[in-house]
Formats: sequence, C-alpha cells, structure tokens
Amino acid sequence: MSQKIAVAIIGYGNVGRGVQTALKQNPDMELMGIFSRSPERVKQDVQDVPVYSVDDLQALQKCSVAILCGGSKNDLPVQGPHFAAHISTVDSYDNHSCIPEYFNKMNPIARDNKTVSVISTGWDPGTFSLERVLGNAFLPGTKTYGFYGVSEKGGLSMGHSDALRTIEGVADARQYTHAIPEAIERVRRGENPDLKPEEMHWRECYVVLEDGADAEKIEKEITTMPAYFAPYKTEVHFISAEELKENHAGFPHGGMVIGSGSLGGTNRGTIEYHNTWDSNPAATANILVAHARAAHRLREEEKFGAYTIVDIPPAYFSPKSHDELLAEFL
Amino acid sequence: MSQKIAVAIIGYGNVGRGVQTALKQNPDMELMGIFSRSPERVKQDVQDVPVYSVDDLQALQKCSVAILCGGSKNDLPVQGPHFAAHISTVDSYDNHSCIPEYFNKMNPIARDNKTVSVISTGWDPGTFSLERVLGNAFLPGTKTYGFYGVSEKGGLSMGHSDALRTIEGVADARQYTHAIPEAIERVRRGENPDLKPEEMHWRECYVVLEDGADAEKIEKEITTMPAYFAPYKTEVHFISAEELKENHAGFPHGGMVIGSGSLGGTNRGTIEYHNTWDSNPAATANILVAHARAAHRLREEEKFGAYTIVDIPPAYFSPKSHDELLAEFL
Ligand SMILES: NC(=O)c1ccc[n+]([C@@H]2O[C@H](COP(=O)([O-])OP(=O)(O)OC[C@H]3O[C@@H](n4cnc5c(N)ncnc54)[C@H](OP(=O)(O)O)[C@@H]3O)[C@@H](O)[C@H]2O)c1
Ligand SMILES: NC(=O)c1ccc[n+]([C@@H]2O[C@H](COP(=O)([O-])OP(=O)(O)OC[C@H]3O[C@@H](n4cnc5c(N)ncnc54)[C@H](OP(=O)(O)O)[C@@H]3O)[C@@H](O)[C@H]2O)c1
Repeated sequence: MSQKIAVAIIGYGNVGRGVQTALKQNPDMELMGIFSRSPERVKQDVQDVPVYSVDDLQALQKCSVAILCGGSKNDLPVQGPHFAAHISTVDSYDNHSCIPEYFNKMNPIARDNKTVSVISTGWDPGTFSLERVLGNAFLPGTKTYGFYGVSEKGGLSMGHSDALRTIEGVADARQYTHAIPEAIERVRRGENPDLKPEEMHWRECYVVLEDGADAEKIEKEITTMPAYFAPYKTEVHFISAEELKENHAGFPHGGMVIGSGSLGGTNRGTIEYHNTWDSNPAATANILVAHARAAHRLREEEKFGAYTIVDIPPAYFSPKSHDELLAEFL
Repeated sequence: MSQKIAVAIIGYGNVGRGVQTALKQNPDMELMGIFSRSPERVKQDVQDVPVYSVDDLQALQKCSVAILCGGSKNDLPVQGPHFAAHISTVDSYDNHSCIPEYFNKMNPIARDNKTVSVISTGWDPGTFSLERVLGNAFLPGTKTYGFYGVSEKGGLSMGHSDALRTIEGVADARQYTHAIPEAIERVRRGENPDLKPEEMHWRECYVVLEDGADAEKIEKEITTMPAYFAPYKTEVHFISAEELKENHAGFPHGGMVIGSGSLGGTNRGTIEYHNTWDSNPAATANILVAHARAAHRLREEEKFGAYTIVDIPPAYFSPKSHDELLAEFL
C-alpha cells in the first residue's frame, strides 16, 4: 500500500467524530480535512486536521473519497446528490423506505460524473442488510428478523430519546430498546412467526424531570405516546441529571439478524448474526471507513455508479491483498 | 426469471444428494442430470433425473453450471481443473491451507475457457470465510475465532468419526465436537486471547464395539490418539448399534465466527455469526446452489475466472432483482 487513500469527512457530528477516530485505526487511509456547514464550531474541537466550509470544493479536490456524516432526515438527501457530482462518496442514509429512491437518484449522478457512491451503509442499513440478503439466499425464501438491544443494557435509540425530550417537564432523557428473548426463541425454533413490533421489543426510559414537573402525568404521557411507546411494554425510571450523565452518556447499541428455514426435506438451518457496539456512531464510522476503501478501489477500476453493501465484493472492504485473504481467512 | 438455470450435479454422495434436494427449493434452477463415476450405483437411488457417467461431456453441454460434489481430498483437485475447462463450476473444496494453490490453478483455466469457477464455498470455507474477512475489515485488524459445535448436540465431525472407525475392535462410531463456552466468553469480553485448539473445543465419542472387544483398551487408544484426541478433553460413550442408528444417524453441525475489537478510543465492538445446521451436507448444498446462481450470472456478464465467496457481490446469490433487494432487505 504505497499511497494512502485521501479521505474527507463531510459533516461533524457523532458519526463524523467516529470517522475521525476510526481513520486512525486504518493505516492505508489519511484524513485530509473536515468539511462542515459550521466550520467555526468544528475548529473549537479539532486542531490537528484542516477544517473547511462545505462549500470549499477546491479543498475537496485533494481527496479521493468523501464520507458523508450528515443526518439522514435533512442532510443526506441534499448533500448526497450534491457531492456525488464532485467526488466519490460513502454515506449511512438510513431512511429504509426511501433507499430505492435515493439509490436511483445517486446512481446516474455518480455514473455521469465518473464517481462511485456507496449509499446506506453502516450496520442497519448495512451489515444487517447484507445478512438479510444472504440468509434469504442460503436458506431459500426464509424470512429474516431483526432484533435490537439484545445485550443486557439494550440499545440506545436516538429517535425515541428525542421524542421523550419533546414532552413538557422533561429536562433530559434516554431510551433503551430491548429485545424480547421469547420472540427470539420462537424464531430460533423455526416457527417463522408473524410478530408485531411490540411482540419483539420493549422500551426502557430514563427521564430527568424539570423542577416541579408532575412525574405521574409525564409517565402517562410517555406510555400513551402513539407509535413511539403506546403499543409497547414501556418502563419509565426517573433519575437525576447526575445519574444520567454518569450512567447514560454513551451510545451503546446493537442487535441481531436471524432466519431459520428449510435445508430441504426435514432438515432445518438457522443463521444468526450479532453486532454489539459500545458506541453506535463509532461502529457505523468504522464500517463507513471500510466502504470508503471499497469506493476508492471501484473508482480506480472505473466501475462508476451507486452501490450498496450487497453490490460490492467483500474483499474490497479489506486492506489485505487477495493472496493474503485466501491464505489467512478462507 | 424466464429461463431456468440448468444445473449439473457431479458426484453423488452426501453433498450431491443435498444439492439434489436443495435445487427443489430454488424455482429459478433446474437439475439437468447427475454425473457420477459410478452411475449404476446412483441409478439405484435416482429415478426422476437422468444419470450420466462423468465422462459424458456431451450431456454436460446442455448445462450452464456444474456443482462439483466430490471429496476434497482426492476428487476435487482433479475434477475441478478438469471440468472448469468445459463448464462453469462451483465446489466446496475445504483443504484450507491449499486453497490459494487451488485458486491459482482454477483461475487461468476458467479465464482461458471463458467459464466461471467458484471455489471453496459452503460454510467453512464459505460463510465463515466471508465473516472472517468482514470482521477483520469492520473492526480493523481484529482477530476472528471459529468455534464449532456450539449447540447442545455439538457438531458431527466426519474426519474424527472416520479416525475412530480405524481402531481395531470398533464396529462403528460418531464424534461430536463441542465448543468450550468459557473460551467463547473470553473472546466476547474482548480479551483477544491466544487459544490452543484444546482450549477451544472438546470431543465426545459414541462408539459401538465389536463382539468381545476390550472397552478399556479402546478408550485409552482413543484418548491418546495423537492430534485427533490426545490434546483434547475427550469423553467416550460405548453404545449399541441400535442406539447409534436411532440417535446418531444425522449430520448435525454448525458453529460461530466471533471477533471483538476496538472501534477507536475506548469503544469496543463485537461481531458474531452463527450457523446451526440439522445437516452439514444439506447446508453446504444450499449454499453451493446459491453460488451456482452467482456463477451463472457472472458468466453471462462475461466476467470469466475463479472466484471465492469474498469476490462476489452478495446480490448475485439472491434470486431477487436489485430493486426487490433494495426495497425488501436494505
Ligand atoms: N446505517 C446505520 O447503521 C446508521 C447508524 C447510526 C447512524 N446513522 C445515520 O447517521 C446520521 C448522522 O448521525 P449523527 O449521530 O452523527 O448525527 P448528528 O450528531 O446530529 O450530526 C449530523 C450533522 O449535524 C451537524 N451537527 C452536529 N453537531 C452539531 C452542533 N452541535 N451544532 C450544529 N450542527 C451540528 C453536523 O453537520 P455540519 O458539520 O455540516 O454542521 C453533522 O454532520 C443519522 O442521521 C443516521 O441516519 C446510520
Ligand atoms: N465447505 C464446506 O463448508 C463443506 C462442508 C461439508 C463438506 N464439504 C466438502 O464436501 C466434500 C464431499 O462431502 P460428502 O459428504 O458428499 O462426501 P462423500 O459422501 O464421501 O461423497 C464424495 C464422492 O464419493 C463418491 N461416493 C459417494 N458415496 C459413494 C458410494 N457409496 N460408493 C462409491 N462412491 C461414492 C461420489 O462420487 P461419484 O458419484 O463420482 O462416485 C461422491 O461425489 C467433502 O470432501 C468436504 O470437503 C465442504
């Protein structure tokens, strides 16, 4: 690996910070700069890497791949198509139902501009998508299930934590999603059950109240909140701001993909894939970085266009040569 | 899917039978014939499919892909290079240390003859190889571990069962490999330990004695057999031929790949992949069939040469269109 892959980070939030850290673990890659809509904010945190405005396309030209770390809701639908016209990109766009539309938007832009755009990667979408496709192909037609928060602490849900914080009288809050073990067991046994969301997961809330807030009223407001909490078994714990800071500062998450189906005749097979992350954005970042390596290579091979994780030969994610992969991992 | 993919089975043993059954689960594929070195033997079992001699290259020409189901020790090193010159092939060659050599032999043959050869797939090598590569790429530099026989029954080892049957006085035998849970826990905790084989697995033997055989002597011969049993904790159960037939007729197997490593900073991530198979050859067969689909497509796209599971975009394994994959699985 003579020349390092020159990487840009676009957008500096949790995932952006994670990519910055992850790149240090990958000696074949080099962080060239962080591009932000609020470069002054970023400069307060970052000293050892150049910080640019997102509009600085000239600085961006020194890079080979840009890892887009903006939010899926408002940032990526705009930033993806914009940057794909200038540079190869990788993003973690996670609005599942809009992925086909996003792919169809990114693909012609990348093709026309001779770039490569890997979209919607990370762990879900990402590694979980890959395992759903493989499970369904290797156990033909098998239904695959996703469970989140399988480990003891559960998985921190940003969306549900945000929802809690919209309630009047809530000063701060965290929501952990937990898988329901009995549901996992039913899938493992090969029942291929129809499971409603509330039969698969329950929700645990840690809430810091504002002074004088009515705990009972807030608990009721939480447990009856449509879609977010109402259908689920929900536990609410009221804690102090100190306790929240001490025990709930991180972003632990993870989960599993599982499918169990026929191998033909009476034989059954089960495929299970687990990810356990101390930090959701840090994990997403590491996966994005491996995809940046793949994007760089695909572009070198002039295979322009948009890709998802299931469109890329897995060897492209590894810094190792093909000979090394065959010798060490096959 | 207008035209079905025409498949040949070459070699009719456990895996060959598994492929025959697995193809029935894949409506986009059609079994054109079984090719064997002992077609008369095969015809006794098979009525509804044409059975040919392996030398019948004319019958083979009606097929698009041949799934090579011969043994890794003596059959595939000869049959692989031979058939790759005539037709696209898929095989489960599992002599790990010789895979690079086998790849380098198959690759030019497939290229020169405008075929595609997918080598060394199944679950190990196969899905486990894929997960080792992904684990090492997504958790940079992480060591991945393979454990076998993680489920209660353990995993039936053909090689070790064969070794037991070579002992004088043994009428029949089965050997189950079991993972040692404490070793798995150490990996899960992120210790990245150096583990000797005997610290990872123990061995359980079910042995049917010949009339008048000396049980004590045979048990000692088993537990002291170099490489196979001596370094391992080994349990020997003597059972009747009836009990062996009733409780140990199948080929259950499976295991897991696990790696735990840094996400950067103090954050850690763990990736775990489990396969649990009622039947090892049936599972291998289903995975081979999905690879036959990929081989067919790669050849249609004129991407000739040899491939392993890490060289193929995972979407190629699925009967679903790219649009369907994005909509249903991403
Ligand atoms: N596929 C997966 O498995 C997966 C997993 C986790 C997350 N994700 C996706 O990753 C996306 C990003 O997550 P995130 O946690 O990094 O979001 P975030 O922290 O909210 O950051 C999103 C963007 O907001 C801006 N920003 C961040 N902090 C700011 C602040 N203090 N003041 C002003 N602007 C700020 C940054 O853009 P500027 O620097 O341009 O201002 C940043 O790129 C999520 O939307 C999610 O869809 C995907
Ligand atoms: N990658 C993986 O995960 C994985 C997993 C499991 C197995 N494998 C590989 O698959 C290979 C095949 O396994 P297998 O269990 O199918 O082996 P097997 O039953 O011994 O069959 C191997 C070959 O022996 C011949 N044969 C079978 N039964 C016979 C009989 N009764 N009399 C004469 N010949 C007979 C067949 O060839 P003819 O029809 O030409 O006579 C057959 O193709 C193994 O060597 C192993 O390497 C790989």
